[in-house]
Amino acid sequence: MRELNVDLGERSYPIYIGEGLINEAASYFQKHGIGKKSPLLIITDSNVAPRHLPQLEESLRNGGYRAVSAVVPAGESSKSLAMLGDLVGEALDAGLDRKSVIVALGGGVVGDLAGFVAASYMRGIKFVQIPTTILAHDSSVGGKVAVNHPKAKNIIGAFHQPEFVLYDLGTLQTLPPRDVSSGLAEVVKHGLIRDAAFVDWCEQNADKLRALDADSLGYALYKGCGVKASVVSQDEKELGLRAILNLGHTIGHALEAVAGYNELQHGEAISIGMVGAARLGVRCGAPQDVYTTTKRVLAKCGLPVSLPKHYDVDAIMAAMMHDKKFSEGTMVFIVPTAIGSVEIRSDVSVEWVREIVEELKLEAEQK
Amino acid sequence: MRELNVDLGERSYPIYIGEGLINEAASYFQKHGIGKKSPLLIITDSNVAPRHLPQLEESLRNGGYRAVSAVVPAGESSKSLAMLGDLVGEALDAGLDRKSVIVALGGGVVGDLAGFVAASYMRGIKFVQIPTTILAHDSSVGGKVAVNHPKAKNIIGAFHQPEFVLYDLGTLQTLPPRDVSSGLAEVVKHGLIRDAAFVDWCEQNADKLRALDADSLGYALYKGCGVKASVVSQDEKELGLRAILNLGHTIGHALEAVAGYNELQHGEAISIGMVGAARLGVRCGAPQDVYTTTKRVLAKCGLPVSLPKHYDVDAIMAAMMHDKKFSEGTMVFIVPTAIGSVEIRSDVSVEWVREIVEELKLEAEQK
Ligand SMILES: NC(=O)c1ccc[n+]([C@@H]2O[C@H](COP(=O)([O-])OP(=O)(O)OC[C@H]3O[C@@H](n4cnc5c(N)ncnc54)[C@H](O)[C@@H]3O)[C@@H](O)[C@H]2O)c1
Ligand SMILES: NC(=O)c1ccc[n+]([C@@H]2O[C@H](COP(=O)([O-])OP(=O)(O)OC[C@H]3O[C@@H](n4cnc5c(N)ncnc54)[C@H](O)[C@@H]3O)[C@@H](O)[C@H]2O)c1
Ligand SMILES: [Zn+2]
Ligand SMILES: [Zn+2]
Repeated sequence: MRELNVDLGERSYPIYIGEGLINEAASYFQKHGIGKKSPLLIITDSNVAPRHLPQLEESLRNGGYRAVSAVVPAGESSKSLAMLGDLVGEALDAGLDRKSVIVALGGGVVGDLAGFVAASYMRGIKFVQIPTTILAHDSSVGGKVAVNHPKAKNIIGAFHQPEFVLYDLGTLQTLPPRDVSSGLAEVVKHGLIRDAAFVDWCEQNADKLRALDADSLGYALYKGCGVKASVVSQDEKELGLRAILNLGHTIGHALEAVAGYNELQHGEAISIGMVGAARLGVRCGAPQDVYTTTKRVLAKCGLPVSLPKHYDVDAIMAAMMHDKKFSEGTMVFIVPTAIGSVEIRSDVSVEWVREIVEELKLEAEQK
Repeated sequence: MRELNVDLGERSYPIYIGEGLINEAASYFQKHGIGKKSPLLIITDSNVAPRHLPQLEESLRNGGYRAVSAVVPAGESSKSLAMLGDLVGEALDAGLDRKSVIVALGGGVVGDLAGFVAASYMRGIKFVQIPTTILAHDSSVGGKVAVNHPKAKNIIGAFHQPEFVLYDLGTLQTLPPRDVSSGLAEVVKHGLIRDAAFVDWCEQNADKLRALDADSLGYALYKGCGVKASVVSQDEKELGLRAILNLGHTIGHALEAVAGYNELQHGEAISIGMVGAARLGVRCGAPQDVYTTTKRVLAKCGLPVSLPKHYDVDAIMAAMMHDKKFSEGTMVFIVPTAIGSVEIRSDVSVEWVREIVEELKLEAEQK
């Protein structure tokens, strides 16, 4: 079992990573002073519920906790105000009070949604994260919780830190291969930002990670969470530094915006985005290996590293413009300076970015 | 012009009370470091907009601010998740960013709703309160913001403190008499909790207050906000002491729950509730004048002090039970010990409360 502390002063909390932790859930709740008088509400989704909910319910019940479960449809569309309203209704029916705790059992969608229920129910009650995807190592650190609006993602939310995070590696065994690779994209991102040795380790162990080897996964999540935690504790409210976590996301978000439904997962989009950022880094003066290594590691993780031919460069640029990170021909961009190091630049030429996006497409054609 | 500081450490903010302050709104915004690059969003309601919005818009425009206005239908039903979604849509259309500010121009409904938009838009942006009712002196202190759920009032919300409060006594001149009295109920409540001399002053000046004499109103709001601010700064997150602000609200909420639509305003319900609480106080050993004074002052403010005959005591008790403040025959109740002083008791017999409610009804019959 690995343990990591997210250092946020009064709001600090631990992340426990290990096999079979769900079976001991009750003892973790107890250890964190969660009382048994008030009911808990477990929020999960329709893919996770049949696979892992009974175990969690049983473990809490055996420990003397009263828990009610709410299952939302799997997928991003559950991150809505309407679903927030439904879940608050379920919380009221179940009699949740100020001392009750919301438990998020699932990936980033469930974590963000359940976290915002916890942040706003009775103006804020406690919550516990039990992530079941690799990508959720990212969303379980930092306290950003939110739902979507038809006009913008994650636009209605709060900063609300969990009491603790229980990462049971056993739950990851049921992840579809595409979600495994997609989650690894953010793991590699954390290495690219801050830890060259870990990027190297990822390359050496990519096959084991994709095969869901528990010990390798545990180490990767521990390191990934560690980088995110260290950035977040330096900038809890996203005033500046935290922007480096957006490596690959400027291009990535634009790709998601123009891609057809289910064509690109988030991790796949930012994988391509990180290759683009690496190219830009080299153009800004970073050594050539920033590009070659980034591309090689991501490919080993089963991720796309070039832009499929049918994508329209104008549409991608328009989507980036919409993001309003532009002003007068330049934009803010997270640019690698070496493997394991990035800088926030506000002077990147829009023209260069367009050329990079075109190159990403050419690469695919050359393959 | 009167000025009062709500002392909450880093989140402290001033309340400015005076005539014509709206006309100088821009200079207050400037004084508080609110920039002119990002657009502001003014949220107001359909009663307030025709009366006071043009003035505010003009004043901000003349000061160089860009402000967009959103007008919601007047009334409690605008405090909903659906309205939150609509307003976030308007904020996005208007291009609000992290540096934008939400301006609440209206009573408690607008304050609570706009405050929650500000608390959750992009995970929290700044907001400014410009209260236009007397009751809103209460809601503008303490940072409690929320919307309702069909199953419960104020159940989805946050603690989000404003940057400052601009109380323009001029806006109060258009208040209907019933809203004036209703607002005075909370003013008197603040006196009953902490300030006997102020209760006395309220009795002496009740007629001037009801006639909307600006200087008297300014003083009353200053004192009322002052009591609330002092309680809130001792207990920002409502962990204990803040409960004393619920004087009259246990019975009051139950009355609101069983009353027909528009039969009782909030201030009217808590006026009756405070008379009930005073009766209970005397029963618990407080001097008789706690009851007679409470009743006399509230009546002078034009408020009901007894329970209309057609109210059903069983229904009222059931509504209180629903509030879950009960356990095994006793309940938590805010009980006056003298004029200007209350205590939180958790041992009040449910039977006594029922008798008090019956007495409140009898009083009406004797009249
Ligand atoms: N709050 C943050 O800081 C943050 C950071 C990154 C991403 N996010 C959010 O996270 C979300 C994406 O996260 P995600 O990829 O985990 O999405 P997700 O929660 O939708 O999970 C992906 C898919 O895997 C399924 N699934 C989850 N666990 C499973 C398991 N153990 N076995 C089988 N199937 C399983 C889900 O039902 C879903 O279909 C987005 O909404 C994004 O905005 C938030
Ligand atoms: N956040 C808190 O701490 C807190 C405390 C107390 C009450 N509240 C909330 O406040 C709300 C009640 O406040 P309220 O009584 O101000 O309600 P309100 O905002 O609905 O105003 C009452 C009525 O007066 C109208 N109005 C407002 N200003 C006017 C003006 N200057 N001239 C003419 N008409 C005007 C409104 O349109 C409305 O019809 C409730 O929703 C309650 O939950 C919140
Ligand atoms: Zn991401
Ligand atoms: Zn009240």
